[in-house]
Amino acid sequence: LTAGPTHHDVAAAADWLTDHVIRTPVLRCAELDALAGGRMWLKAENLQTTGCYKFRGALRAVGRIAGESAARGVIAQSTGNHAIAVAAAAQRYGLPAILVLSADAAPTKIALIQAAGGNVHLTGETLDDRLAEVEALRRESGYAVVDAYDNTDVIAGQGSAARELVDQVARQGTRLDAIVVPVGGGGGVAGTCLAVDGQGTAVYGVEPVGCDSLRRSLAQGQRVKVPPAATLADGLRPTLIGRHPFQITRSRLAGALVVDDQAIAEAVCLTLLHAKLVVEPSGAAALAGALQLAATTPMDNIGVLLTGGNIDPALLGQLVTQYTAEPVELARPAPHRAY
Amino acid sequence: LTAGPTHHDVAAAADWLTDHVIRTPVLRCAELDALAGGRMWLKAENLQTTGCYKFRGALRAVGRIAGESAARGVIAQSTGNHAIAVAAAAQRYGLPAILVLSADAAPTKIALIQAAGGNVHLTGETLDDRLAEVEALRRESGYAVVDAYDNTDVIAGQGSAARELVDQVARQGTRLDAIVVPVGGGGGVAGTCLAVDGQGTAVYGVEPVGCDSLRRSLAQGQRVKVPPAATLADGLRPTLIGRHPFQITRSRLAGALVVDDQAIAEAVCLTLLHAKLVVEPSGAAALAGALQLAATTPMDNIGVLLTGGNIDPALLGQLVTQYTAEPVELARPAPHRAY
Repeated sequence: LTAGPTHHDVAAAADWLTDHVIRTPVLRCAELDALAGGRMWLKAENLQTTGCYKFRGALRAVGRIAGESAARGVIAQSTGNHAIAVAAAAQRYGLPAILVLSADAAPTKIALIQAAGGNVHLTGETLDDRLAEVEALRRESGYAVVDAYDNTDVIAGQGSAARELVDQVARQGTRLDAIVVPVGGGGGVAGTCLAVDGQGTAVYGVEPVGCDSLRRSLAQGQRVKVPPAATLADGLRPTLIGRHPFQITRSRLAGALVVDDQAIAEAVCLTLLHAKLVVEPSGAAALAGALQLAATTPMDNIGVLLTGGNIDPALLGQLVTQYTAEPVELARPAPHRAY
Repeated sequence: LTAGPTHHDVAAAADWLTDHVIRTPVLRCAELDALAGGRMWLKAENLQTTGCYKFRGALRAVGRIAGESAARGVIAQSTGNHAIAVAAAAQRYGLPAILVLSADAAPTKIALIQAAGGNVHLTGETLDDRLAEVEALRRESGYAVVDAYDNTDVIAGQGSAARELVDQVARQGTRLDAIVVPVGGGGGVAGTCLAVDGQGTAVYGVEPVGCDSLRRSLAQGQRVKVPPAATLADGLRPTLIGRHPFQITRSRLAGALVVDDQAIAEAVCLTLLHAKLVVEPSGAAALAGALQLAATTPMDNIGVLLTGGNIDPALLGQLVTQYTAEPVELARPAPHRAY
């Protein structure tokens, strides 16, 4: 393991990425503000290239690899979005890419990888299975591995989303009390912690029930592997938090929140119907966590990283149809006015 | 009828609105570009306050009324979004608002009007029914009428969306060949024509099958009323184009396109799944029209006004579920790459 990334790596990644990624909008929505009892600043990274903020870290890492004369290609393992991002980044630099996913990965995401020219290898369902396959393919091909959780450029690149969010909110004259981020292998939450290091903004990580490797690791003071668990949030299923993310978050994270499928499904539909944005369950997990946080710890300004929007269309139809039968009761921003 | 609005009214409205409305993002999406065979610049007015670009015109008009000392309240008739916008604008200025809608108006939109403090009156299903009710309520209340189609401030305000779009695209070093706008009573398309007057950008209006008062009026050289027709696009049902919109478009519109429910439903789903934005059928009609246009008249850069996102959740679930069974075959932006 190399020396971990720092606040300066995030700043440098953000500067470099300015010309290469979309500066996604930060949106507010009266209905969500009313539900939270505070202002929710939504960073719409579902609108990022490849439909996910992971393009930031992948482009930063692949861009550096492509600058090396020995570069022949790249390999990555992923639950989905990191693979889409690496495939798209490799395509931009004219490098071949091999992407290793679990056999039960979301078909929508596999199709997006292939559309970006990526070569998909399916393997077993655990992180260990995928890592073993990556190592075998690396030896065979000589390609460079772009690790999803422990690569300094990847972590720094993901952190650029939070850095942008803070800047965009500051331009509205506001400082965030907290930023809430979904956690899979931990690259994004680690990058977010580094992005706001020393600025007094609390960072909260959100994991699905049963996929809480970060929460358990922080509680026990060492990395804890969890057994694979079913969750709507297919992007948050890694069974073990990365080494750098653990080191970075253990001294910086304000809290690790856990949300269930019901809360995630509601957050998908709330975002869809009120913020008018399509987010995948993993992306909506941050909103679910932020609403849980706001219910217990009132805050004036909460940043929410809506990390991605690559949802399976059939699942989206199903979630919306279910929600129509039992919508969340909204606190109304204003009373009815009598004539 | 007063003298109609001009390019200068749009410019003045846009300047004034800068501090009062959201400068919504302009987005691009590789999948939609590939389908159109050109670059599609999507103006995401579904992310505007009240979920629709009509807040622009309503705020401009109500803001002026509120500045008059005799102002007691406002009245408007609408298929939905203009009423939501007028209610929200009136709430911002502390004025009471009465909104007249057809009895078959979308329940989601009625709920949004009430949430903004508006007083809803339901009446018959034709424009004439609504206009008669507005006149009766005006006499009774003394409130000022904010006409949806023929008010200069409303037309100029709606036009500010296209003006912003042109500016945002210009900052990317690009000039639009065309802008495509959905047409109900014609306020938006008229404002768009004025916004780009003399700039060499072609404006196309899009109407649902059977609701093509603008197309028929332009063909016959006088305003033609159409019988009420069923359409997915509930916001595009006015049966008669406004007088100012007819005068403004007759010398300026490049073409009037007609789209069917199937094309509108596909456009809703394409926008949802690829651009990650929730648009209502009326908003998606512009994309459906733009795809039809691109198929017959190749263009490098087309602006598309995604006017609103206030879709009924049950309808959204239904459209997505149907689409999952029969998706549109996308032209792939890149071939698969073999390892």
